[in-house]
Amino acid sequence: MHILGIDPGTGILGFGVIDVAPNSKATLLDAGVIRTPVKHPDAERLLIIYDELKQVIQELKPDVMAVEKLFFAQNVTTAMTVAQARGVVLLLGMKHNMKIFEYTPLQIKQALTGYGRADKKQMQEMVRVVLGLTTVPTPDDCADALATAICHSMQRQPNT
Amino acid sequence: MHILGIDPGTGILGFGVIDVAPNSKATLLDAGVIRTPVKHPDAERLLIIYDELKQVIQELKPDVMAVEKLFFAQNVTTAMTVAQARGVVLLLGMKHNMKIFEYTPLQIKQALTGYGRADKKQMQEMVRVVLGLTTVPTPDDCADALATAICHSMQRQPNT
Repeated sequence: MHILGIDPGTGILGFGVIDVAPNSKATLLDAGVIRTPVKHPDAERLLIIYDELKQVIQELKPDVMAVEKLFFAQNVTTAMTVAQARGVVLLLGMKHNMKIFEYTPLQIKQALTGYGRADKKQMQEMVRVVLGLTTVPTPDDCADALATAICHSMQRQPNT
Repeated sequence: MHILGIDPGTGILGFGVIDVAPNSKATLLDAGVIRTPVKHPDAERLLIIYDELKQVIQELKPDVMAVEKLFFAQNVTTAMTVAQARGVVLLLGMKHNMKIFEYTPLQIKQALTGYGRADKKQMQEMVRVVLGLTTVPTPDDCADALATAICHSMQRQPNT
């Protein structure tokens, strides 16, 4: 099964696709980020996200989408633009008949490290180890997206 | 020129399409609301909004989209789901090559009534009068969407 993990954002959106074998072994298929020009209008940036993420989905055909639930930052305006991007991401999942699951940062940390207060470095190290990589995937948004995908692979029931 | 006005929301999204003649006279072409089932997952509701609004755009072929800017309600969770819907709306505008304009509730009130503290009834009455209707369009979300479209028709420069 292929799981697409997403760390939503407008300036930079992280994605990661993993394959999970029947014996639960997870391997990295692809990971990266979609960057959009900060000074462009929201609508243009959303179209870039839509087009680029659509291409990833069409190439790697993930069965499931796991999206990080919004973390309410102090900056409400930023949170709003991230929510707009998230709307486009969820729409894409629906349009490609993917099952969609949402996880909070706390759930993702707990799934990967067993407790909710793991720091960024610990999380990234877990992503590296679980996927059997020699180095931590960069940038952070990319590792965060992979962590969300791994979280789903650990939470899921058979056939979900 | 056809202007599509949008009052974004997830439970209920208002839309209104007006035609603005070269002499600036505005007439109503269509208006309505898109309702989505409250208990359904966000992603499913976003797909309903996408599909139904797309149909409106394909039928009436508006040149311009005027969208109400988010009003930050006390309820952050609601604001986030509205922002997700707004992302889908902006994406639709881009995918149909529409020019997109955003107006705050204050700008809309000022454009229609000349001051920023107009109440809902005054606004609805202005929508009725400007469009030459016998009754106020209902529900409120529908009148709000038309107000946004009218606001753009009053603000715009020639050929925008």
